[in-house]
Amino acid sequence: MQPLRLAAVEDAPQAAQFLHDFNTEFDSPTPGQPALERRLEMLLASDSTLAWLGGDPAAGIGLVTLRSNVWSDGPVGLLDELYVAPESRGLGIGSAIIEAVLAKASADSWALIEVNVDEFDRDARRFYERHGFANTEPESNERALYYWREL
Amino acid sequence: MQPLRLAAVEDAPQAAQFLHDFNTEFDSPTPGQPALERRLEMLLASDSTLAWLGGDPAAGIGLVTLRSNVWSDGPVGLLDELYVAPESRGLGIGSAIIEAVLAKASADSWALIEVNVDEFDRDARRFYERHGFANTEPESNERALYYWREL
Repeated sequence: MQPLRLAAVEDAPQAAQFLHDFNTEFDSPTPGQPALERRLEMLLASDSTLAWLGGDPAAGIGLVTLRSNVWSDGPVGLLDELYVAPESRGLGIGSAIIEAVLAKASADSWALIEVNVDEFDRDARRFYERHGFANTEPESNERALYYWREL
Repeated sequence: MQPLRLAAVEDAPQAAQFLHDFNTEFDSPTPGQPALERRLEMLLASDSTLAWLGGDPAAGIGLVTLRSNVWSDGPVGLLDELYVAPESRGLGIGSAIIEAVLAKASADSWALIEVNVDEFDRDARRFYERHGFANTEPESNERALYYWREL
């Protein structure tokens, strides 16, 4: 089992570096490590953002944001990011992080945990399905699609 | 243009009735109007849940929850629900609500607005696409899928 811990505010620099590396690796825009670090210092001090660092030394991150929701007393958690550094893949760090997220969700009575995944990212889809996530209701083949509009 | 207003805490009973009717119409579970009303009284008093009522008398609702996000200074809004009562459809109430949400998003510097839509709900997909939402990056045919796990 991979070592794992919930990130504290002091982990903001490391967490920011992982998120910056993540977007850099996948050619997504990033505001840069310093801007991410500043935001994470605020967010990790709040109770609506949680991050886990996996491996020792840390080699991966999972980031969850929580929101309230009218359908349940408990909050809904969205897994915004899950990233493991390239040289540390295949060691079970991603699975250790997702299991820690699910354990926290269960302990804190979250209603739901969500994640958005690209259609052609078969590895990620299999990974989440293996961890109990679904993209359709049971006995249905109708997939749920994620739409967005930037402002 | 349809009359429209941001819901206040006093609108919780009406808003709860619409959400209950929504789920009843589409055979989704609902905790019932009284439970929804109690939650909406709390949520509408916070600054992370916004609802709009459209029509006069009100005949439809849009419900948005806001959360912070590491990629932007502004929050991300999720359109949790958009419902117009059956007898008032086709009058532009849904469009008036979505335009009000987008205007608020722009005025308050949200980074993104999101909505999850069922694959086979072509009317809803066309509706959101007409209002500037996308399910793929530009020049890509890879759709973003919404996965979830209940707890």
